[in-house]
Amino acid sequence: MTTIITKPTLFLNKDISLKNIQMMQEKALKNHCIFRPHFKTHQSTEIGNWFKELGIEQCTVSSIGMAEYFAEAGWKDITVAFPLNILEFDRVSSLSKSIALNICIESTEVASFLIENTKFPLGIFIKIDAGYHRTGVNAASFQYIEEILNVLKANDFCDFKGFLQHAGHSYHVKDKSEILTIHHETIKSLVDLKRYFILEYPNLVISCGDTPTCSIAEDFQSIDEMRPGNFAFYDVMQANIGACHFSQIAVAMACPVVAKHSDRNEIIIYGGAIHFSKDFITNVEGDKIFGLVCKSKDDWSILYQDAYIKKLSQEHGTIHSTPEMLEHIQVGDLLYCLPIHSCLTANLMNSYLTTKNQEISMYRYS
Amino acid sequence: MTTIITKPTLFLNKDISLKNIQMMQEKALKNHCIFRPHFKTHQSTEIGNWFKELGIEQCTVSSIGMAEYFAEAGWKDITVAFPLNILEFDRVSSLSKSIALNICIESTEVASFLIENTKFPLGIFIKIDAGYHRTGVNAASFQYIEEILNVLKANDFCDFKGFLQHAGHSYHVKDKSEILTIHHETIKSLVDLKRYFILEYPNLVISCGDTPTCSIAEDFQSIDEMRPGNFAFYDVMQANIGACHFSQIAVAMACPVVAKHSDRNEIIIYGGAIHFSKDFITNVEGDKIFGLVCKSKDDWSILYQDAYIKKLSQEHGTIHSTPEMLEHIQVGDLLYCLPIHSCLTANLMNSYLTTKNQEISMYRYS
Repeated sequence: MTTIITKPTLFLNKDISLKNIQMMQEKALKNHCIFRPHFKTHQSTEIGNWFKELGIEQCTVSSIGMAEYFAEAGWKDITVAFPLNILEFDRVSSLSKSIALNICIESTEVASFLIENTKFPLGIFIKIDAGYHRTGVNAASFQYIEEILNVLKANDFCDFKGFLQHAGHSYHVKDKSEILTIHHETIKSLVDLKRYFILEYPNLVISCGDTPTCSIAEDFQSIDEMRPGNFAFYDVMQANIGACHFSQIAVAMACPVVAKHSDRNEIIIYGGAIHFSKDFITNVEGDKIFGLVCKSKDDWSILYQDAYIKKLSQEHGTIHSTPEMLEHIQVGDLLYCLPIHSCLTANLMNSYLTTKNQEISMYRYS
Repeated sequence: MTTIITKPTLFLNKDISLKNIQMMQEKALKNHCIFRPHFKTHQSTEIGNWFKELGIEQCTVSSIGMAEYFAEAGWKDITVAFPLNILEFDRVSSLSKSIALNICIESTEVASFLIENTKFPLGIFIKIDAGYHRTGVNAASFQYIEEILNVLKANDFCDFKGFLQHAGHSYHVKDKSEILTIHHETIKSLVDLKRYFILEYPNLVISCGDTPTCSIAEDFQSIDEMRPGNFAFYDVMQANIGACHFSQIAVAMACPVVAKHSDRNEIIIYGGAIHFSKDFITNVEGDKIFGLVCKSKDDWSILYQDAYIKKLSQEHGTIHSTPEMLEHIQVGDLLYCLPIHSCLTANLMNSYLTTKNQEISMYRYS
């Protein structure tokens, strides 16, 4: 029986998502990379199983709570790709007893904390800043990295795994060529680090993560591990920078139409900031775009180039429409909208509904 | 026993919040207004009880799910201040059997739907656009409003209550004087409507809603009902436009410090877009500000004018710091941050912790 949709509902096209996952897995295989996808985008053990069925056994998460959630579902090898929050170390310690858990650090202070407190084997990546400048040790700071590593030597449970970086600046580019430039620069930084430290740490891994470079670049031969996450769903932001085609976007929000304003070519949907999040892109005129409107439930290509979500408040979405669209759309219809940033949109919803009518639950923040 | 804070936690100062609630209740009383506070900000039956203990028995919500949640907790008179989503009419109908439920409409089409489908007494407000231009019937369209009212006459269960407007444009002003201008304009529009329709509908109510005008203006003598919501917590956005003092902000997010970058005066906190939301204000230089940093757990005045959240990704917050602050703050400390938009921040969290250590649960989207 088909679920009757009456409120904002996040649809997931499993076929598209599976194709995205297989495409990325093949790229990792071809490049002899460990494939450790980031699960912060989908945050669902059921979707995690789709990866498992393809033979993927390692994953990345962004919090210890999420690591516990996936460990509970049978994941035995998890990296928390976030600077260790020492206040949660009891949970880290406890989880490291039952699975292979990797964490990230970036200072001698936290390394000192770890040698004092680590009582079970714990994998440790040093977070590297290779150009994004959010966090991590500057990739050129060989000496400081050596200091961190020297601190870690004092506790045998502290198992240095390698260098992890996230080229988040690849989200803010204009086109593919800029993504490739970032890819080459970050790879060079990591390879330089590897060359320097490989003699002392012959098993060290260099790990890269962002969806844009992992989608666009082909050559990851010198990289050991790939950790993209967003690619499982993609979104308008990724399509906009050329990291995917619109046809690869695997999620769309069904939103009831609640009002029409023909005088200003606007349609009001039930679907707001608490469903989509407030991330936006801007068009060439500088107007903000919070989502795009699909043709229908079964055809997620763009309805009209001029139709987009121009404004979001808590529960309202305002669609910039066209006279033609206003004529065809009635109050009580459902509009299917592609999100700008699928990670934040998925995080706001409690569940997915697949286009084949399967409800899929998600992790809740804890 | 004091709860040990190890992760992003939304603190709520009950004393401040109660003072805000009492202040607004007094203003409504003084103006002989019905006080029907909007509960979409706090979304909590426990906080609803604080209002109830002050004798407040009517409330506003933004979805039928939220109406069901508060009805379950004993609220018997609720307005859903959102254009009726006809796809959810079964739930509306069902709830209207057990409580006094008001909904909003803004077209003859939806009025026609209602006369066909309404089987139990249902309060109906006509949503008026008095200048915000999000949704609602233009306040000057007397004739169209009359058409809607004429349609409604065909079903005795459709009980026309009055005109409801939300002056959401008051959120986007520069200062108090602009808020007052909006207040006078919107009141004039509603009073004109009342004058025109009062003979035929002697009990009709005109209802206003936004926190900025309700906070700044004193004269609501010609208004029948006040429905502000945000004022229970306020936030940086409201303080920034002059709708409140910083000392009236009742919520702050505790965020663990996970990294420091002295070279660029930045501190990384565990606290990102999935905790704060992506709403921001801009400072005079045009820089985005996603939150401000308080002095301490017990003193929520601003730590340094120069210290603010400058960037948010999914779980990371980047604080623009000062050399002085960097010296005093260590990894593992907690920073208390005032949110830009408390409604969206509260919506993202599962619960509050009061400054007196009481955990308070919230509604979850359904």
